Amino acid sequence: MKTVPSMQVRFRYFQRMKRERRLQLWGIAAALAVLLLFSASCSNSKLEQQIEAMSNQLGILEDTQAIRNLHHAYGYYIDKCLYEDVVDLFAEDGEVHFAGGIYRGRTKGVRRLYVESFLEGFTAGKPGPAHGFLLDHLQMQDVIHVDPDRKTAKARFRAFMQAGAHETSKSPMGEADRKAKRKPTQWWEGGIYENSYVKEDGVWKIQILNYNPLWHADYANGWAHTRVGYLGTDAPVLYPQNPTGPDALMDSGWALWPETMIVPFHYKNPVTGKPLIMEKR
Amino acid sequence: MKTVPSMQVRFRYFQRMKRERRLQLWGIAAALAVLLLFSASCSNSKLEQQIEAMSNQLGILEDTQAIRNLHHAYGYYIDKCLYEDVVDLFAEDGEVHFAGGIYRGRTKGVRRLYVESFLEGFTAGKPGPAHGFLLDHLQMQDVIHVDPDRKTAKARFRAFMQAGAHETSKSPMGEADRKAKRKPTQWWEGGIYENSYVKEDGVWKIQILNYNPLWHADYANGWAHTRVGYLGTDAPVLYPQNPTGPDALMDSGWALWPETMIVPFHYKNPVTGKPLIMEKR
Amino acid sequence: MKTVPSMQVRFRYFQRMKRERRLQLWGIAAALAVLLLFSASCSNSKLEQQIEAMSNQLGILEDTQAIRNLHHAYGYYIDKCLYEDVVDLFAEDGEVHFAGGIYRGRTKGVRRLYVESFLEGFTAGKPGPAHGFLLDHLQMQDVIHVDPDRKTAKARFRAFMQAGAHETSKSPMGEADRKAKRKPTQWWEGGIYENSYVKEDGVWKIQILNYNPLWHADYANGWAHTRVGYLGTDAPVLYPQNPTGPDALMDSGWALWPETMIVPFHYKNPVTGKPLIMEKR
Repeated sequence: MKTVPSMQVRFRYFQRMKRERRLQLWGIAAALAVLLLFSASCSNSKLEQQIEAMSNQLGILEDTQAIRNLHHAYGYYIDKCLYEDVVDLFAEDGEVHFAGGIYRGRTKGVRRLYVESFLEGFTAGKPGPAHGFLLDHLQMQDVIHVDPDRKTAKARFRAFMQAGAHETSKSPMGEADRKAKRKPTQWWEGGIYENSYVKEDGVWKIQILNYNPLWHADYANGWAHTRVGYLGTDAPVLYPQNPTGPDALMDSGWALWPETMIVPFHYKNPVTGKPLIMEKR
Repeated sequence: MKTVPSMQVRFRYFQRMKRERRLQLWGIAAALAVLLLFSASCSNSKLEQQIEAMSNQLGILEDTQAIRNLHHAYGYYIDKCLYEDVVDLFAEDGEVHFAGGIYRGRTKGVRRLYVESFLEGFTAGKPGPAHGFLLDHLQMQDVIHVDPDRKTAKARFRAFMQAGAHETSKSPMGEADRKAKRKPTQWWEGGIYENSYVKEDGVWKIQILNYNPLWHADYANGWAHTRVGYLGTDAPVLYPQNPTGPDALMDSGWALWPETMIVPFHYKNPVTGKPLIMEKR
Repeated sequence: MKTVPSMQVRFRYFQRMKRERRLQLWGIAAALAVLLLFSASCSNSKLEQQIEAMSNQLGILEDTQAIRNLHHAYGYYIDKCLYEDVVDLFAEDGEVHFAGGIYRGRTKGVRRLYVESFLEGFTAGKPGPAHGFLLDHLQMQDVIHVDPDRKTAKARFRAFMQAGAHETSKSPMGEADRKAKRKPTQWWEGGIYENSYVKEDGVWKIQILNYNPLWHADYANGWAHTRVGYLGTDAPVLYPQNPTGPDALMDSGWALWPETMIVPFHYKNPVTGKPLIMEKR
């Protein structure tokens, strides 16, 4: 025990040290504290950077989820002819690209298409589903990319539709079928969206809804027997000459089954990062 | 060189300072260390808050993903008449709302519906798919919202079904078709879920599975010719009078195609935050 | 005011203290600084751990999103016979498990299947869609699990297909139909993927694409009347005896509708964590 001085002994030894020596020790402690503090400060700044990066990654995932919800919500509204609610999903300068035409402005072209054209045509102007009128737009297969600034985004989705009028339908389509003494209209449809989105005041909105119907098939006969020219693909007559027409024509033409076209992808091959390979290698 | 004292010179100068002066310098250093430390400490507390917020955001995304997986897993099980596994996806006090009835309690009402009713009816009581019996429930178009406390959540999904018995089927439905000397039963079906979820011990479970079939279509004729009253929509007879009946009636009635109804949304318009617009503006 | 010494008074008192006493105070301050610093340092290290854990959780969500995008991109490519791009989605030692056969190696077996077999058969060797040839592979219902090391992952998806040749089709299938003087071939198909993924250089790739077609239905008659043996399910002839054959046979046999099989799940019941229940409890 004698050879190992106790804490108390060491403390007394410390007290007996010359004041000068003690001063030096305190000084060293303070200097160490300052050094350690700078290192902690640096490490904090590194943490802050890491947290900043993670916050951005997290934000991108939240944006992706918000855009999925936005498009899926659009799908549920459009099923049920809730067109006023569809229109509200667009940015003020939002656009619809559809059937060769461009409809511009939420309260102008976009509303003209959904409310003046579709709502009148499908439900005679009353938001909500018409009796015996089916218009299910199944939405799936999202490929969503948020831009680095997190203010804009692009997404590809697919729609698969079941549509038409029941034999007892009181909808405009049902009435038209009866008047024309033809069998009720019922069809399958497949199509692809390549949409743009914009975030305004923290809320994601549709910038461009670009829906490309690709094929239609009458229920009775299927896609093997779709009438060529099922929908006319001539350039539409523009507004205001056509009161429900588009504001401009799409640059790209459009084609329908049995023609087959590739709706351009907003993204490159996710593994190679290269554009489409259109020749056998 | 003479006008700029070297480090060594300056250090010697420091050593020659009066002890008193040196004491003051050390003291200032120590005081600075304490100040810097408090500031670092404050910055840490700010970091901690930021991390707490991010941890919550991250948790919500994980919850969303867990609920998507849960519902999609349900979909794969129900395709294959794996009803014991379906029942295990529910909370103890979970419910099914289906076809006008409410089935209460995982081991009671929920099990009664899936195991005593569906399993007996579709596979004669043996979990797993019956020969020649198709019951594909395609699941898609999720709109998921986790509540702020991260203990409950709501989600909308869509189902699209292909169902029926093959002409050679040994399933109860196939046998019934042959006995009745009718063509094999085969149909399309579309419907919407508006489900509730609860997290118990860190695991998301189904609180209320609320499936709303919306339309059926016999394969041969399609939705334009669905028989009115395809499924009876009278109020079901309750358990125990009906041994496989529900425990209670749904408040909301239910309707089937060619009637059209909007399954109420658990969320407001994602852009405006307002409820559905049911009048043309 | 006299009883409460002002700051100035207290400071003068401090100055009048014996140097020894002041030294002790500075020392205590320095010691406190060191202690606080260590505690801040500990708290930092705790923050670092928390950030590390969150970074991993975040990474898993990003991986999940990347795999969803990868599979959905695959779906869009395969619709349009963009097989060179499909092949590029695979890891070098990637595999396809399909129709009883295993195709090994991105540039070997995988390419043999997609480019030498499908591309030749469907478009006569030209990447891109053939006129009047429909091959839509709707992709949905993902259940994705990233392994803890974030280098491998597994996912279940569902495909629902619309396929066949239009009556005017210039595709090989259309030509074959006309030559055989039969009605155009058109069918529905349902199937399930159970895929594996690998991350190489930060990019997710397909390790094993395991597609299980489950049922086919000719458009005219539906799944109730699918011809038994719609596709032969005999073991395929291997490469090189069969120039477009697989490299090996799948261990598991395969079966098609009206047989029904459960494609094995890569995951346990998400609530109980237990394997499938195959007996009524």
